[in-house]
Amino acid sequence: MLDIAVIGAGRIGQIHARNIAGHPRARLAGIADAVPEAAASLAAATGAKVISLDEAFAATAVLIGSPTPTHADYIERAAKAGQAVFCEKPVDLSAARVRACLGVVAAAGTPLMVGFNRRFDPHFAALKRRLDAGEAGRLELLSIISRDPTPPPPAYVAASGGLFRDMMIHDLDMARFLLGEEPVELFAAASCQVDSGIGEAGDVDTAIVTLRTASGRLCQISNSRRATYGYDQRIEAHGSAGLLRAGNVTATSVEFADGSGFTTDPALPFFLERYAAAYRAELDAFITAVSTGIAPTPNGLDGLKALELADAATESARTNRAVALS
Amino acid sequence: MLDIAVIGAGRIGQIHARNIAGHPRARLAGIADAVPEAAASLAAATGAKVISLDEAFAATAVLIGSPTPTHADYIERAAKAGQAVFCEKPVDLSAARVRACLGVVAAAGTPLMVGFNRRFDPHFAALKRRLDAGEAGRLELLSIISRDPTPPPPAYVAASGGLFRDMMIHDLDMARFLLGEEPVELFAAASCQVDSGIGEAGDVDTAIVTLRTASGRLCQISNSRRATYGYDQRIEAHGSAGLLRAGNVTATSVEFADGSGFTTDPALPFFLERYAAAYRAELDAFITAVSTGIAPTPNGLDGLKALELADAATESARTNRAVALS
Amino acid sequence: MLDIAVIGAGRIGQIHARNIAGHPRARLAGIADAVPEAAASLAAATGAKVISLDEAFAATAVLIGSPTPTHADYIERAAKAGQAVFCEKPVDLSAARVRACLGVVAAAGTPLMVGFNRRFDPHFAALKRRLDAGEAGRLELLSIISRDPTPPPPAYVAASGGLFRDMMIHDLDMARFLLGEEPVELFAAASCQVDSGIGEAGDVDTAIVTLRTASGRLCQISNSRRATYGYDQRIEAHGSAGLLRAGNVTATSVEFADGSGFTTDPALPFFLERYAAAYRAELDAFITAVSTGIAPTPNGLDGLKALELADAATESARTNRAVALS
Amino acid sequence: MLDIAVIGAGRIGQIHARNIAGHPRARLAGIADAVPEAAASLAAATGAKVISLDEAFAATAVLIGSPTPTHADYIERAAKAGQAVFCEKPVDLSAARVRACLGVVAAAGTPLMVGFNRRFDPHFAALKRRLDAGEAGRLELLSIISRDPTPPPPAYVAASGGLFRDMMIHDLDMARFLLGEEPVELFAAASCQVDSGIGEAGDVDTAIVTLRTASGRLCQISNSRRATYGYDQRIEAHGSAGLLRAGNVTATSVEFADGSGFTTDPALPFFLERYAAAYRAELDAFITAVSTGIAPTPNGLDGLKALELADAATESARTNRAVALS
Repeated sequence: MLDIAVIGAGRIGQIHARNIAGHPRARLAGIADAVPEAAASLAAATGAKVISLDEAFAATAVLIGSPTPTHADYIERAAKAGQAVFCEKPVDLSAARVRACLGVVAAAGTPLMVGFNRRFDPHFAALKRRLDAGEAGRLELLSIISRDPTPPPPAYVAASGGLFRDMMIHDLDMARFLLGEEPVELFAAASCQVDSGIGEAGDVDTAIVTLRTASGRLCQISNSRRATYGYDQRIEAHGSAGLLRAGNVTATSVEFADGSGFTTDPALPFFLERYAAAYRAELDAFITAVSTGIAPTPNGLDGLKALELADAATESARTNRAVALS
Repeated sequence: MLDIAVIGAGRIGQIHARNIAGHPRARLAGIADAVPEAAASLAAATGAKVISLDEAFAATAVLIGSPTPTHADYIERAAKAGQAVFCEKPVDLSAARVRACLGVVAAAGTPLMVGFNRRFDPHFAALKRRLDAGEAGRLELLSIISRDPTPPPPAYVAASGGLFRDMMIHDLDMARFLLGEEPVELFAAASCQVDSGIGEAGDVDTAIVTLRTASGRLCQISNSRRATYGYDQRIEAHGSAGLLRAGNVTATSVEFADGSGFTTDPALPFFLERYAAAYRAELDAFITAVSTGIAPTPNGLDGLKALELADAATESARTNRAVALS
Repeated sequence: MLDIAVIGAGRIGQIHARNIAGHPRARLAGIADAVPEAAASLAAATGAKVISLDEAFAATAVLIGSPTPTHADYIERAAKAGQAVFCEKPVDLSAARVRACLGVVAAAGTPLMVGFNRRFDPHFAALKRRLDAGEAGRLELLSIISRDPTPPPPAYVAASGGLFRDMMIHDLDMARFLLGEEPVELFAAASCQVDSGIGEAGDVDTAIVTLRTASGRLCQISNSRRATYGYDQRIEAHGSAGLLRAGNVTATSVEFADGSGFTTDPALPFFLERYAAAYRAELDAFITAVSTGIAPTPNGLDGLKALELADAATESARTNRAVALS
Repeated sequence: MLDIAVIGAGRIGQIHARNIAGHPRARLAGIADAVPEAAASLAAATGAKVISLDEAFAATAVLIGSPTPTHADYIERAAKAGQAVFCEKPVDLSAARVRACLGVVAAAGTPLMVGFNRRFDPHFAALKRRLDAGEAGRLELLSIISRDPTPPPPAYVAASGGLFRDMMIHDLDMARFLLGEEPVELFAAASCQVDSGIGEAGDVDTAIVTLRTASGRLCQISNSRRATYGYDQRIEAHGSAGLLRAGNVTATSVEFADGSGFTTDPALPFFLERYAAAYRAELDAFITAVSTGIAPTPNGLDGLKALELADAATESARTNRAVALS
């Protein structure tokens, strides 16, 4: 049984705490949160106890789900305490800070896993497995579509690091995960079409990115902060031997037909529903990695590289120039 | 070039006349109809001439699309004239009359093809081909769904011979076509749920039939005189090695998604659209058969056997008893 | 918290015991099984204790998942002990025995729920909800397809009561659930096409049934003991205003395309996977009913009526005659 | 009846000549081709006569389907002769030459239609209609996928003007057709992944393009010279109120299911099959335009603008820089 303390009792902390409580090989060591009521509420819901930050950093492992600005500090503190760490993405919005933090982790030699949950989605994981098994031959073209159902409030946007660091970072990680080699060039085009408040907050709400790898593989990413038909999450991998794609997921298989046509359910509403299984599988991978002493993945370097791509996309969208990636 | 005269300038005669006019190996010898204006209008549309019945029976081949009560007489006259005949289904609503008619045809030794157009539908024909090729293994369960978009007027129903002879006869022929052996038992259940006027005219508008063959293959047919989502035409063949099915066809591949879900087009509206290709392929098969001297299929016996099944279904629905078929 | 003892540590008992153990408003009072090792193994897996039958009948509620011949006796014993009972289908293979048992339950006034899990499947439950909401108008035609992936061993078949009581009983219950009125007539056709050993054991492996209600609604059921493409579970409800259907469920949304076409996953393999959510929802409904004092549904009468339909189907298939239902 | 002469008896000329011959409001004035046998063969197949170039330029209208280098000269000659012209794309591979040619046409005041057949595809045309009707709200993101089944021979590639001018030009025209405003920026990434012979001929076989319009609409195009699953032709328009997409088209609706899953047909093999209806509708639009005196569309300017985008894409792919469009 792996003892895991949870820091952060917000939306994402709640998902993880419940999954830890229900996992047969883990024990929820307690909930720490700067807001005592939040910690108490989540502790009650999961049968765990409220703990202090000091207590959280005394458990065998710690899951960091607190606000982004605290991540790097907490990772360093946990690493120095010899803890295994699972940290929600991103490690930090500054690549320099991430690099420094990863240096501390490397020095400590402790395991660090970063929460790119989509790698563990059963649909995308199956696509990856089949791609790796060669079913589609050599990958040539990759397309990733990711659209939120509704835009976040402009206030959220202002502190988020921008669409590329906040939202597309998941797709950039997925691109790295699937392309099998690092991108060498990136071009981004973006605009504000959904909510002018987002534009006034200095961000964009619609964006597309092109990636090219050294061997010539091409990747397209499409993001929007709004999709009226649910949380649009799709991947399509075109290879020399065929096409593999993972489509949207619906709540039921029910279909209705009348003069308007044949209508299925919309896509699942948002990440809580769409990625419920992914969060469980992600946690399971972390527990297994820590328990067996194998380095967890995606790790801190994956977090850094996705952030560097998001930084490059932010710059490219601003300058209208392609960015060469080292 | 095969010279074909068309008798009957109604809805079905129009389809066939246009197809003959457009066929590279046929010549439309003329249009005959009891209503001169109808003949003239179709002749003008196809670049053909209006002809008399006598002239129609002087062509190399004749296509009979006139009202059902005329079919058997016209077939006999054509056979005696040595003509190849394509006759719309049914040959007659009385099995005894059909038998007598087929006797005349047999005596004349002339070719007779009956218009079970669905055998030539590209979708159903592909299913048949793949079934025959053994792709699904041994056929065990067959399901045929056939639903009209809107009920016909009760006046039509009164003269139609009833749902089983007018509508389900197509599905009964399809069952014979696909089952690979004759049914030995039939059970029908029917009711009037769509239009009480149809019930007052002595007919039903909703019906299901069960067929069993000697080797134990089972078949279900489902008919309704109304489907709000278009002309519902589906076949599903379940075999020892897999399932083959042919689904509905839509006008376009366009799909719309919003909060209501993902919506495709409805099914094609009715037989003119759904079976446009089938009518062309059917005519082509007739022309090829006559031109090469090979007996056309489906033939008069197929017409008789489908009618006998429709008669048995009519009786079964009336008596609530299964009918053994010889 | 509702205390529930589980009797029977076989395949179905394992499903329920795990669900009880994971339910926030239930406590697993223990596992009783005639085979001590089975009880011990399941107890270990669920963190519960092994208990005796006497102890099982002392809990607040009991879940009966033992072999069919024990069901009625155990239900009676539990009822006399004042327990709420959840019993797997069927209550008994003899309708007379079921009637007697239900008399005992009625006399005791205790709640009894029968395990027709499919009513709780999210897909079928959504279809039912939308049908009841009038989305498809008045129901006219119902089609239920239920095909197992592989045939059971002939030895199982011999003790099962036959396909209609063992397998189709689920579909007969679903028909009652959805039709909104009781069937008044039934016709069954059956054969042995999958495994001759099943025929030698006196049973059939392929069967179709027709139901008719007093108002003329028609229902078709199709069963096979084999489907190469997974556990085929589909429902289609055709009404005056449209069609509602619930299709098969796949493990992932991944699709592969090459020269052979576009290929999705097969249907989920069998009931463990297909109805995992249904078993959880079913248990939740039982706990909620017992906790709130509302009579649970489906109840003993539902179990009896489905069995009576299965008996009628067995007779109809044997005699080739339609059976009038009272 | 519009008299149309056809110049060019190759693959595309054959399509158009047959469609003219089958059109009720057109007459095929004859076939001209530099290769007399080709002209004779197509003339025989369509019941038309072989004519000289001089005769072709004497008809009321001329359809130019000869090799690309002849297009501009023939258009000019036809314009000077007062003919209505339908010319296959492209007018020329040099934008300067196109401009000069359009000047001649403008001076003559004769109608010129350019063969962007996909605008007339029933699926894409329906999508366009529904988009224009506001069904998806304001268009924000457009995705166009176009992949040939198999790469052309390197020799073809060498004379083609390159992938962007030869293949993607169709998608660039479609982007203009759907975006509702002109692109102001373009970025292309391309590589040779399918056939190294294409690379040796100086071209690419895989390419993606990003377009941005002044109001911020974003468009992605994806091209490959190979798709193992048929001719991949898809469009997806994401708007403020929903998503409209047109998917691939299959030969039949037949689906097969076994342990490998549920398999539909592959996409239609290539443009002859996929765009058969589009070619007919395109011709009909030309005939209608000329007959009614309304200027046909897409016109010469559409041809020029698509070519300018293809030129910009060629440059962008070579320089790895975004190109601003005037």
